[in-house]
Amino acid sequence: MNTMNELTLNSPLDMHLHLRDEEMLKLVTPLTAETFAGAVIMPNLVPPVDSLRALEEYRYRITEAQGDHVFNPYMTAFFRNYTEDELADLKYEMLGIKLYPAGATTNSEAGVKAIDAVEPTFKMMEEMGIPLMVHGETHGFVMDREKEFLESYEYLAKKFPKLQITMEHITTADAVELLGRYENLRATVTLQHLIITLDDVAGGMLNPHLFCKPIAKRPEDREALLQAALDAHPSLMFGSDSAPHPLSKKECCGCAAGVFTAPLAIARLAQLFDAHGKLGNLQAFISDNAQRLYRITPPEKKVVVRKQAFEVPAAYQGHGQHVVPMHAGEILDWAVTSVS
Amino acid sequence: MNTMNELTLNSPLDMHLHLRDEEMLKLVTPLTAETFAGAVIMPNLVPPVDSLRALEEYRYRITEAQGDHVFNPYMTAFFRNYTEDELADLKYEMLGIKLYPAGATTNSEAGVKAIDAVEPTFKMMEEMGIPLMVHGETHGFVMDREKEFLESYEYLAKKFPKLQITMEHITTADAVELLGRYENLRATVTLQHLIITLDDVAGGMLNPHLFCKPIAKRPEDREALLQAALDAHPSLMFGSDSAPHPLSKKECCGCAAGVFTAPLAIARLAQLFDAHGKLGNLQAFISDNAQRLYRITPPEKKVVVRKQAFEVPAAYQGHGQHVVPMHAGEILDWAVTSVS
Repeated sequence: MNTMNELTLNSPLDMHLHLRDEEMLKLVTPLTAETFAGAVIMPNLVPPVDSLRALEEYRYRITEAQGDHVFNPYMTAFFRNYTEDELADLKYEMLGIKLYPAGATTNSEAGVKAIDAVEPTFKMMEEMGIPLMVHGETHGFVMDREKEFLESYEYLAKKFPKLQITMEHITTADAVELLGRYENLRATVTLQHLIITLDDVAGGMLNPHLFCKPIAKRPEDREALLQAALDAHPSLMFGSDSAPHPLSKKECCGCAAGVFTAPLAIARLAQLFDAHGKLGNLQAFISDNAQRLYRITPPEKKVVVRKQAFEVPAAYQGHGQHVVPMHAGEILDWAVTSVS
Repeated sequence: MNTMNELTLNSPLDMHLHLRDEEMLKLVTPLTAETFAGAVIMPNLVPPVDSLRALEEYRYRITEAQGDHVFNPYMTAFFRNYTEDELADLKYEMLGIKLYPAGATTNSEAGVKAIDAVEPTFKMMEEMGIPLMVHGETHGFVMDREKEFLESYEYLAKKFPKLQITMEHITTADAVELLGRYENLRATVTLQHLIITLDDVAGGMLNPHLFCKPIAKRPEDREALLQAALDAHPSLMFGSDSAPHPLSKKECCGCAAGVFTAPLAIARLAQLFDAHGKLGNLQAFISDNAQRLYRITPPEKKVVVRKQAFEVPAAYQGHGQHVVPMHAGEILDWAVTSVS
């Protein structure tokens, strides 16, 4: 029963997640597996996950770490020029291929050119029905990188009309505007980009724990992202981009990018949707849209969130790791109260 | 003799400087006094310098700390509603009064309203010929704060046409554009805002040592500031805003704002002006404009800069303090080679 103070979510999904490896993986995997029915696992390890064997081994380490939780890791491969045989092998073991456009430079024309060189792989992915997930930023000025990349998305969406393309972790009103203009273009958005702007990162003291890539943008960008999420825009999915870094890499000279939100994401999203009177749209945002867009059926999992105080831990520790989450030490208004 | 590889600067001035107090003051004062003939000393101590006695005592501590260097600290008082008697006492002991518009809020209309309440003091300052120095930012979105404040500058410049107003540490093309539109409006600009953009603070790793307020803006802003400096815009003066923080306040969770440039500012400016073929304009930017605009005659000091390698120290230490400068550990192409 869904009252105003309680909501049962069916099989919540995190469509963009970093689990890292080794001891960090052991710490953070259960923190997602506890409340999510599945998550799309990013392949940017060192070296990257770009072979069937590496992917299977990584999945094994994840399932070992998740313990008894009902949880499906949707694996991804790191983009490179794959052969048709490689793609055929990978296809049934993964959800899609993640592209970091390292070749893209300050102007989007060059970005598209860099994409040209790998079009044979895109063509095969299109024909074989393998989705493409893209970190869409140029190497331009930090506030313009996503906007400059949008024409590359359009180029791809038009040139490969059957290729399913996900704009990962969008951060701008311009990206929201593009969403829905092409049948084959969808997006994920993080928790933090629905809540913060550059002000929260650098408007007062510099806050390394809210520093992420793409960087949080302007108030009007946050507003557009939030509105699309609250309205359960049919092409938008929740993807936390939760990215743990050891404390030593955050509170230091030259801090690494990434916000750790996995353990509190569902509670905080419930609070956010409730605050805007849109609780009824959370199910679509956090699971149904992704199920429809990727044609996946996650394991059954009922997650009850209730309007009650939840103190976010100051840190999550274990396996020699120490990770500071978003909202560390703060009290949220909503809590996950049961999972079955 | 000024050749292409050498320049003699007459009495360089830093028109915006933080010396702090106590042990930090003892460390950093000689680092400015060594190469500058004078500097405008910011009054934002705790408690602020807002009385004749506090000002005279602070000047005494500075002159004690500067050692044998020929150096004149141009004192400032922290803005509040002063009486006419107080202003008469202060006038000959200081260069001007520094306003931090704490009452200004997100919209500039409110900013102007906050300014309304203190207009009697402005009126007296205008009549007595006491300059006003302003930290011109609203409390709006971090990238818009200076631009939003510009209409307050215009309001003041028009309402008090004989009040000499300095827009401190400008960071935007919009502020440059305003410069010169009013006879009584001038500005300072820092070294770092001629060199960096937000990209250098948060485009790669987060760099706390380049985090300052106002925050570095967009490439087109830096370009406009640099062009005005290189052209020795008659209303623009060098003011380093050099602001030392102990290392513990910089490489930490929630980093303080301020870039420490004092000991390398002259060498780095020479390198910058030389790189653009504008060495001949450095004298105006670093001293002559300020002398004319403030009608001051600093002590005689000849500072020779030469095109030769200068390794910036990784840190400046002493008196129990440890401060990391801009360009720490880097090699500059120009060096101060003699002072007389």
